Amino acid sequence: MEKRTPHIVVLGAGFGGLTFCQNFNYPAARVTLIDRQNHHLFQPLLYQVATAGLSAPDIAQPIRSILSDKPNVTVLLDNVVGIRLADKAVVLENRSFLNGTAHANEPVLTADRQVRPAEVAQSTALAYDYLILALGAVTSYFGHPEWEQFAPGLKSLGDALRIRRQILLAFEKAENVSDPAERERLMTIVVIGGGPTGVELAGAFAELARTVLAGDFRRIDPRHARVILIEASRRVLDHLPMELAVSAERQLRDLGVEVKTDSLVKSIRRGCVELERETILAGNIIWAAGVAASPLTQKLGVELDRAGRIKVNADLSVPGYPEVFAIGDMALVIGKDGKRVPGVSPAAMQMAKHTADIIAHELAETRPGKPDRLAFAYWDKGTMATIGRSAAVAQIGNLQLSGYPAWVAWLVIHLLFLIGFRNKLSVLLHWAYSYFTYKRGSRIITGL
Amino acid sequence: MEKRTPHIVVLGAGFGGLTFCQNFNYPAARVTLIDRQNHHLFQPLLYQVATAGLSAPDIAQPIRSILSDKPNVTVLLDNVVGIRLADKAVVLENRSFLNGTAHANEPVLTADRQVRPAEVAQSTALAYDYLILALGAVTSYFGHPEWEQFAPGLKSLGDALRIRRQILLAFEKAENVSDPAERERLMTIVVIGGGPTGVELAGAFAELARTVLAGDFRRIDPRHARVILIEASRRVLDHLPMELAVSAERQLRDLGVEVKTDSLVKSIRRGCVELERETILAGNIIWAAGVAASPLTQKLGVELDRAGRIKVNADLSVPGYPEVFAIGDMALVIGKDGKRVPGVSPAAMQMAKHTADIIAHELAETRPGKPDRLAFAYWDKGTMATIGRSAAVAQIGNLQLSGYPAWVAWLVIHLLFLIGFRNKLSVLLHWAYSYFTYKRGSRIITGL
Repeated sequence: MEKRTPHIVVLGAGFGGLTFCQNFNYPAARVTLIDRQNHHLFQPLLYQVATAGLSAPDIAQPIRSILSDKPNVTVLLDNVVGIRLADKAVVLENRSFLNGTAHANEPVLTADRQVRPAEVAQSTALAYDYLILALGAVTSYFGHPEWEQFAPGLKSLGDALRIRRQILLAFEKAENVSDPAERERLMTIVVIGGGPTGVELAGAFAELARTVLAGDFRRIDPRHARVILIEASRRVLDHLPMELAVSAERQLRDLGVEVKTDSLVKSIRRGCVELERETILAGNIIWAAGVAASPLTQKLGVELDRAGRIKVNADLSVPGYPEVFAIGDMALVIGKDGKRVPGVSPAAMQMAKHTADIIAHELAETRPGKPDRLAFAYWDKGTMATIGRSAAVAQIGNLQLSGYPAWVAWLVIHLLFLIGFRNKLSVLLHWAYSYFTYKRGSRIITGL
Repeated sequence: MEKRTPHIVVLGAGFGGLTFCQNFNYPAARVTLIDRQNHHLFQPLLYQVATAGLSAPDIAQPIRSILSDKPNVTVLLDNVVGIRLADKAVVLENRSFLNGTAHANEPVLTADRQVRPAEVAQSTALAYDYLILALGAVTSYFGHPEWEQFAPGLKSLGDALRIRRQILLAFEKAENVSDPAERERLMTIVVIGGGPTGVELAGAFAELARTVLAGDFRRIDPRHARVILIEASRRVLDHLPMELAVSAERQLRDLGVEVKTDSLVKSIRRGCVELERETILAGNIIWAAGVAASPLTQKLGVELDRAGRIKVNADLSVPGYPEVFAIGDMALVIGKDGKRVPGVSPAAMQMAKHTADIIAHELAETRPGKPDRLAFAYWDKGTMATIGRSAAVAQIGNLQLSGYPAWVAWLVIHLLFLIGFRNKLSVLLHWAYSYFTYKRGSRIITGL
């Protein structure tokens, strides 16, 4: 009896999904990688697109291009609408990209008749032998989805370009407005959430106003812009040791950021953030306070934590479904120290390699029965956050760095891990340019 | 009696408007430069953004940043809604940027009350002593505005990003579609108009399909994509000598472009171009066949040509209004040879300098009466068009170049004239990368 070609379906081409495809060494199996974007995004630098330092193509690579040397990997641009775990099948929208164009519901002309999109594209089911869930996380508003319209989050290139446009336009509007209160409101930027993304955004906005934009306006002085970072807990970066968090706060204040810790957001309306003790009027509000696993996990009928992550087995498989694995921000993994493995890219990549090894091992097994699976073990490579020019904090093993050395370490590590030679060179060029000129290369507004 | 500060209003920050501001040397006058974008766009390279070679910020620079060393120039991001020539005033929308954000018509919150946008922003009139009309050209569909939705033109960064998205998505759709006819339709790109933009687009699309995308798909072969260039007249590039046009056509065919000259477009529908002798089904139709002056000229009540250009005096002033000048694509200027000065950037820049000199001269004149004005004389620096890798045509004076030398000349000249050191370096880097790797750096789709 001829052996059927095994089929592995990978959902999501983030750090987890992509690393799986790159590390899965079993050429006799077919792999289908599905993402609703055509590019892999280097999320650690996304805030630099939002703050006009880098352009979108600098931190993105076409997924097809990255995997072009893997002939057994097929890349599909599509939306996952459901997973039928019992049938071992994934349901795809199969027309997500038609929706992406302007006239999705209008008929398409062919030589002799009109074809409605429904005829050419319907949802399809894709059967799998193994399934990798690697769809990552979405912005979470802690039960207040209505805040999203007033305080956008930062997860995709589209988000970053919208935030960039909004902030740059706010200064343009301020230059044109005669009412001083309105001008002040437009020149106020509130970043909610003192984790790495919030800290990096606040620092970059402060630098943007104080150096990059400083000399370019005639009626306003961008250096008078307020950048306010709001954090509910006692301190920023609360996953780092106290000394580093204190150092980060000091470096933020040196850049002109107003850091408000112990400040819980009560409500957000248009141009207005309400805290317990005060109300801040701000033309620009960015949400960096929380993430949750991709909402697809809600439909699976498996056990989740509060943020929607799947409580996986020690081998990263989904309980009850040994052929399904969840990795990265979709998985809740408890390390040997009893703490949750953090939602960072090295963790997702390690999980991807672990899963790729298990599956290749099982497929290669010729004896009856399947080999035992190893438990996943997370190796913490450290954590870091940049704040601004020569300002950062980093913890690498027992080593704690702050200021200039942390900043250099951050630059080197991010350049090394950025995928693609062109992107590395382009980002290096833009960073060098910004360092020497105090300018930023992507201060353009599109879509007016 | 104290002399009032003269006020010069410049409409448009393209090659004409920007060059005026850079060359106007009369610091005692105030200059206000108005554009509805925040960036100056290097239009000669716009087709490379549409064809995924360059990213948007590579060919755009913030206007404020370019003019930051000109303290007497104020830059305003606004829409011009009318010109009152008799009152010497320009009417600005003064809320164009509010429209640019998502919630223009919703109330804005201030500390104690809600303010409707209408209160904070109304159209305003701006008085001038001199006015420079430099708003450039728009895509013209020769009386068929309904074609625009099916065959977008290429004038702004927004246009370029939309075209890039559409073309890249078409290949993604083709990979997913099982119907061979539909697949073929998706992999057909029609470019209408055999001028420089059409030739450059067709060549770049052919290269994109045949080299850049070639190995990245599993179900389709992008090398089988059809790229068709349609031109109504006898030959492409009909502003160039016959030998160069013939060479350009040959170079296009070598790249795999089907060149259809003598082909008048009768109608365009969704996904379908009708010529006199045939009907072409194409998922991607780009319009590069015609431009007309900014429609604002229609409202001025002065004499225009068929493309809406103002028939200016020899000094470039608008007949009847010596304080108003039209330059670049808004002006119809007849050269000494009896031919129209072409709508190219060197012409716009020369007109800008001429106008700046006239105005500075008149303002500096202390004796009663105004000095005589010089007539504008156009110095033709030559013309060139690139077709693809090592493929181009160029005419510089009596020198005619074709193929590799023309291509190198094109690269050098475009790099030299690109504004900004960062942009030059970034573009050089991306070109070198593409040359050596046969890849393109901006193959990402945003806004899905």
